[in-house]
Amino acid sequence: MNLRIFVDFSLPPAALELLRRGTASHDLIFSSEPAASVLSPTKNDPLFLTADIAFGQPDPLLIKNAGQLRWVHISTSSITRYDNPKFRNLMQNRNIVVTNSAHVYFEACATHLLSFMLAQARNLPIALGIRALGGNHLWESVRENCEPLSGQTVVITGFGAIGKRLTQLLQPFEMKISAFRRTQRGDEGVPVISESQLDDALALADHVVNILPDSSMTRDFFSDARIKRIKPGAIFYNIGRGATVDHLALFDALKSRRIKAAWLDVTDPEPLPDDHPLASQPNCFITPHVAGGSNDEGIRLVNHFLGNLKRFIDGESLLDRVM
Amino acid sequence: MNLRIFVDFSLPPAALELLRRGTASHDLIFSSEPAASVLSPTKNDPLFLTADIAFGQPDPLLIKNAGQLRWVHISTSSITRYDNPKFRNLMQNRNIVVTNSAHVYFEACATHLLSFMLAQARNLPIALGIRALGGNHLWESVRENCEPLSGQTVVITGFGAIGKRLTQLLQPFEMKISAFRRTQRGDEGVPVISESQLDDALALADHVVNILPDSSMTRDFFSDARIKRIKPGAIFYNIGRGATVDHLALFDALKSRRIKAAWLDVTDPEPLPDDHPLASQPNCFITPHVAGGSNDEGIRLVNHFLGNLKRFIDGESLLDRVM
Repeated sequence: MNLRIFVDFSLPPAALELLRRGTASHDLIFSSEPAASVLSPTKNDPLFLTADIAFGQPDPLLIKNAGQLRWVHISTSSITRYDNPKFRNLMQNRNIVVTNSAHVYFEACATHLLSFMLAQARNLPIALGIRALGGNHLWESVRENCEPLSGQTVVITGFGAIGKRLTQLLQPFEMKISAFRRTQRGDEGVPVISESQLDDALALADHVVNILPDSSMTRDFFSDARIKRIKPGAIFYNIGRGATVDHLALFDALKSRRIKAAWLDVTDPEPLPDDHPLASQPNCFITPHVAGGSNDEGIRLVNHFLGNLKRFIDGESLLDRVM
Repeated sequence: MNLRIFVDFSLPPAALELLRRGTASHDLIFSSEPAASVLSPTKNDPLFLTADIAFGQPDPLLIKNAGQLRWVHISTSSITRYDNPKFRNLMQNRNIVVTNSAHVYFEACATHLLSFMLAQARNLPIALGIRALGGNHLWESVRENCEPLSGQTVVITGFGAIGKRLTQLLQPFEMKISAFRRTQRGDEGVPVISESQLDDALALADHVVNILPDSSMTRDFFSDARIKRIKPGAIFYNIGRGATVDHLALFDALKSRRIKAAWLDVTDPEPLPDDHPLASQPNCFITPHVAGGSNDEGIRLVNHFLGNLKRFIDGESLLDRVM
């Protein structure tokens, strides 16, 4: 079977070579203007219209004109651009399979979350900045602000591959973990709560870990009202999407110290402007949307695609199918 | 049995109350000049000479004059001040039991080490300082410098309660861990290597985790020669004692980037003077000897002592006995 595979983003040399070797019996077509990163939308490209398979971030408006298209493999975990009823209907009517790259990023994302939780638990941002002497007041305050994770309570909103991996990473700490997701699958390994139970769970949470994607259903999910339900003194984390959180409400909660600290890998907008109130709030720690990154990212991305390509050719069901 | 218990350091109110209640049937004697922290040596105090039990950091020179003394419970993990043949002989001849507080601090110390490993793996010190946009060069470099821990190699020098807990915390990452300790006990759970095997192990290590205490046998254990045996690109961690590492050799290795980064909770001297070369080396991250700290430290310290007090009265063997 000879397939035309359209790729619309740049890959590092080793990953590109891996992709070329793994698709040698097919036609690899590159966008004339490849996107700089997997997070950038692709440009309009006439070659795309001849493809059987799209690997990257193809323009949803162009897909309807690509008459041969049978499979779209999105190069991110996020599918926000595609996650609407109109696009889902089009894919269903045209029998186009859509997969994402969740399994490429979940390890890095879960590790990033754990690094946030531990940096907070061990007070690293402050401890790394001082040269206090054992016994003095500043030194005592750094030590006293360190909190053992063991036995604390975690609520994860938007529970999927990342949340599941995080619960594995946290297992040695024996924390009380519950997960909110809309569609329970039975393989979560932790208690799953419904939206009606969420407020009660937030009122008990020492850690609120938000991994929700951006969609019409999740926009401002952490509204002012919901943020006010979180237990005073809790820590808030977000590596989902910035749009799921009311940032001014979060700022108010951080400024009044009702929320002890926030650790954000995503913001709204991105990057956060320097004059945004959260940008200079001392108990708000922000990394610039790097949670999914790792030095083996390109290789993982290509290996995941090639694994699915083999399944596609063999007529098997694809990993990370989202439509 | 009525015992005179001498305490030579300050405790927070809740921990002090716990100690008073737990020792109500005994005489609690407080030093007239309590030390500010568990790390500070105590002052000479005549009341000490009447004690059956010492809890804290009693002066090794005074212990020989305390004729009633039967048990010394040291309030730290470190026993450097006591760890010499002369003192050990005195304790043996006088039948004085010596215990330390290893089980109070190992959870915090192991968590601190994990926070170092994850902050490095996720490039937090740089990522927290920039507001780069997805796709630009700085952003790419932050992501590309993130390294998955899974499958990497760890060598732990000075393997005890902290090292054992660290291997539990790292278990979900499936790393290759080996431990160096002088006296193998068989309960390590990871391969134990001898000093003659250590250089070969260091040559393969992605992470070198030093937890060695300070003693005449460990002084400058990480000498220039040994640091040069560490695999290029490895990360070095120290939460043992600063004196076990040749700091100028470590500086050279960091400056040349042979060692990718160092994360130190202990230094020599402590605190490190601002004009010490390591203090401004960008790939050297230092916290001020806070790895053992936590908000429940005083309570844990007292509970550990009270548990041992019950064992002492019941004639059972004590936890964390070191002499």
